[in-house]
Parts: sequence; structure tokens; C-alpha cells
Amino acid sequence: MEKSIKIFAPATVANVAAGFDILGFALEKPGDEILIRKTDKTGIQIKNESAFTSMPLQPENNTAGVALQAYLDAIESKQGFEITFIKKVKPGSGIGSSAASSAAAVFGANELLGNPLPAKDLVAFAMEGERLASGSAHADNVAPALLGGFVLIRSYHPLDIIPLPTPERLCCSIIHPQIELKTEDARKVLKKQITLQNAVVQWGNTAGLIAGLFREDYALFGRSLQDVIIEPTRSILIPGYDQMKEAALQAGALGCNISGSGPSLFAFSTSLEEASRVAEAMQQVCSSLQIDSDIYVSRVNKKGPIVL
Amino acid sequence: MEKSIKIFAPATVANVAAGFDILGFALEKPGDEILIRKTDKTGIQIKNESAFTSMPLQPENNTAGVALQAYLDAIESKQGFEITFIKKVKPGSGIGSSAASSAAAVFGANELLGNPLPAKDLVAFAMEGERLASGSAHADNVAPALLGGFVLIRSYHPLDIIPLPTPERLCCSIIHPQIELKTEDARKVLKKQITLQNAVVQWGNTAGLIAGLFREDYALFGRSLQDVIIEPTRSILIPGYDQMKEAALQAGALGCNISGSGPSLFAFSTSLEEASRVAEAMQQVCSSLQIDSDIYVSRVNKKGPIVL
Repeated sequence: MEKSIKIFAPATVANVAAGFDILGFALEKPGDEILIRKTDKTGIQIKNESAFTSMPLQPENNTAGVALQAYLDAIESKQGFEITFIKKVKPGSGIGSSAASSAAAVFGANELLGNPLPAKDLVAFAMEGERLASGSAHADNVAPALLGGFVLIRSYHPLDIIPLPTPERLCCSIIHPQIELKTEDARKVLKKQITLQNAVVQWGNTAGLIAGLFREDYALFGRSLQDVIIEPTRSILIPGYDQMKEAALQAGALGCNISGSGPSLFAFSTSLEEASRVAEAMQQVCSSLQIDSDIYVSRVNKKGPIVL
Repeated sequence: MEKSIKIFAPATVANVAAGFDILGFALEKPGDEILIRKTDKTGIQIKNESAFTSMPLQPENNTAGVALQAYLDAIESKQGFEITFIKKVKPGSGIGSSAASSAAAVFGANELLGNPLPAKDLVAFAMEGERLASGSAHADNVAPALLGGFVLIRSYHPLDIIPLPTPERLCCSIIHPQIELKTEDARKVLKKQITLQNAVVQWGNTAGLIAGLFREDYALFGRSLQDVIIEPTRSILIPGYDQMKEAALQAGALGCNISGSGPSLFAFSTSLEEASRVAEAMQQVCSSLQIDSDIYVSRVNKKGPIVL
């Protein structure tokens, strides 16, 4: 058995429009790269060779550390590990930076220990990393980060994870405007009470998204990518949101919405060429507003984490 | 072309747990039987040979009359029709009595006129009958009554009707306790405001129902048959509701909930034998409470209305 392996774990999009808190998917890029190594002494050590210097290195303050510890506690292992971050999804981007780290750590450790648990069972541990990162143990980033593809979190109590089909031609554009927007703050703007009328519109679209994925019906999936509950308040925190979304749709996107709790946006298209045009159209809006941005164009990642 | 035909249109279950207002399915039995005849003079005449004598015979006060008139207006036809009700689903049962009538009328007229419109396009006219019956033009009864199977109403504005797959072994038990419960009153007890937290639970289950139907995953479908928003208030209007549901689950049902706005309950099983046991278990509860009841056991109807 290897003593040290390099892991890639993908960035992910959660809160997929009408799939708030229950639907996420994985990207082919970007993602985290970590080196994970079994050590002779017990405990978790974290090293950072990535570009993001603000990462806490104490395992109890690090999302990957917390996730890994939860995993080790569950399997009652005293094995020590050292995690070295090589590449890291930008923290605070809204594309599952903390989830990618947590997923990479538990996936890597599980590999090094001979896979005592199936990937699906790792989700609960990675969720502990999310609890640290955002104050809420949501699963719609860590589940696709670990399983790949689209994943439904049907229920949190008990946890019920349902992998969904991924239509072959679905391509994703991501724009990450370089503004700061904390997950916790994005949670605070949410209304605790909503109208039943809006909720009905929302779960009609939730159902439409799921049916669209199963049918490989891109038009149905696209017109179901609506959110009448979260987007109206959260989008206000993202400068230029309406114009970016409009630009994406004008460039041919099937739909566009906030990725996670923002500030990134995601849009879907049916080819990488179209997805590139869509990403560029969104970036032009950002540029015109003097906001720097990163863009990514990717198919939906069907594999989840891999050993590099 | 025939001048007169006999039509069967099925009873239906709407508000399928977490599919409130957006998901319905058709039953093989019971249903409405009507005779519809082209007449020489213009206008709609309604005759009633069914057991339910309280049916309004003025077309503008009759759900089938209103639906048929909306259809004729849309296709700009001056053709006159006579509708004779032969068998009728009990009004006020919560299994789409008004929807079956509306569906039968527009389906029959469309047949007699050589099918100028596809079945899907008839839904909007049958909805006008629902508006008369309940004050709200909902589609989750009329759409499955016209199309058969499970049907998703993804959106009302614009109307977007998505037929869904029907798992082969799915069988339904219906119990109709003989108590009066008006659709309008059942609407009044609904809370206009709900918590976001409950809404997330609800649309997780909405998504689970849709995924369960596509996967033919009976266990997933069953555990998704939950409703944390409507059932808690509406079930109070149905005496013995909790005991009936408990009896259904004890007898092996996959799930059980309120049919439409009640007072009927539906439950699902994976065989007709099991569905019979479930129906009987629910009926025993009704009997113990001195409430008369009708029970029906049926597969899911995949055809919608038929010419007899």
C-alpha cells in the first residue's frame, strides 16, 4: 500500500437555482491538489504550498483537518496524516473551495487506508469541514466533490444522498468576480419566511431540473434553472449580477444563477465553445465595471476526486 | 366521423405529498363515464343519468360545461354538444371528480371534431372547469386525467406540462371517508407563509419523488412521499387521519398522504395484493371511528381518457 499519494478534488457548484441546499454538481476544473502522507506519529499535520497564505494550519481550524479527524474518529483509527496543499481553489469564491479540501483529505486518507468506506459514506465527514467553514454542515458541495456529477441531497436528517445522471453535452461556465462575500453574510440576507406561492414555483422548478437531467432534456433543464426565493436577495450582494446573467443568456446560455452563496455565477451551455462565449460575455460585464474576475469553462466532472 | 361517443376519464390524485400543486397521477379506477353527442343546434346541453343528483345542469355552472366552452371558444367552433353523465366520481372526494368531468368533456369533443388539438393542449381548457369547481385553476388533476400517468406541472405561467415515467409495479390504494370537506375550505387552512427551512425539506422530497419515478426506485419514491408543509394543517380536517396513515404504513405501504385537498387518502404499494391489504387496513380505522368509506385499489392509469 502507498504511503503517500497526490489527490485532485474538484470545485463544485451548490444551490443550483431551485435546488437550494439540495442540489450540486462537480466541475472538471478548477480543483484542489493535495499530497497526503501517512506519518509514523498520531495526529494531523497541515502544510501549505498553495498560493493562498491565509490558510489556518492547525488541523482543528482547517476544513480538511476537521473533515479528516471526523473520518478517523468514525473508523476508530489512530493513524497520523500529513496533508500538503499544492493547489487550492480560491477561498470565498462560491465554488466549493472548502468542500474540495475536505473531500480531498477524506478521499485521500480513505485510499491510503485501503478504502474501508465507500465514497458515499465519506460525505458526512466532509460535511464537518463545511460546518467549520460556513457554520452550517451543508452537503451540496461535498457530495458532488466526492461523488462527481450531479448529486441530490434529498434529506439531511437522515442524510440521503442520491447521485443523478449527468447529460452528456452539459458544459458549465463559471465567473468569479474578485469581490469579497462571506458565506455567513450571504446566509444572513436569506429570508427565514417565504410565501407558499413562491415555494410552489420553486419546487416546480426543482422537479423540472431533476426531470431535465434524467431526460437529457436541455431545454427543460434550462427553463427550470430559476430561483424566485434566494436569487432575488442574494444577487443584490453581487455587483453587476443582473447584467452578467443577461449577458450569459444573450450569449446562448441555457440558464445562469448564483454559484453556492456567491460571488461566483454559473451558466450552462451545450458545448464547450458556447460555454467559452458565455464566460467571456460575463467577463466583459465585469471588466466594464472595473471588477477583476476569473473564468472557468468545464464539462461536468463525473468522477469526483482522483489519485494523480 | 362518429356523431356520439362514450368516454371514460380517470379519477386522479393531485398534491402528491411534496408535489403540492405540481404533481398528480391518474387511477385506472374509478372514473367518469359520459356520452357526448354532436347536436344540430349551437350551445352545450348537460344531462345527468349518474347517481349524483346535485350536479348543476346549466353549462356555465357545470365544470364539464365550462371546460368544453373554453375549448370551443379557443378553436372558434360553433358546434353544439350534448353531454350525458352516466357514471360520476363522487363530488368532493378529493380524487379529481371535477377534473374527470372536464377531461372527459374536452377529450370527447376533441375526438368528435377529429382531434384538432393534441391532448396536452386540452389541459388549459379543462383547467377552466377547475377554476369553477375550486376557485383556482390548478392543473395537477386535469393534466393526469387527460394524459395519464404521473404529470409534473413545472410552471403555471406559462403553463408547462411534463409527463413523467410511471414505475411498472406501482399500485395505489385510495380511501374516501364519507365526510364533507370542501376544496375551498381545505385551501383556507393553508398557511400563506412558510419557513425556508421547511421549504428546503419539501423540495428535497419533491426532487426525490421525481428521481424515484425515473429510476423506478420504489424505496426512494416511498421515503420521498413526505409533506412537512401542507399535511400538518390539512390532516387535522380529516378525522382519524394519523391512524389511517399509520395503518397503511404498518400494512406495508411505501407511503401515504392526502389525496388532493382531501378527505381521501392515497397510499402506494408494489403489488395489487399489498395495495388491497393497505386499503383494508385504512378502512378498518374508518370503521372503528364509525365513518363510512369507499376504497379503491388500482394501478396507475397510463392512458388517460379512452373512447369506450
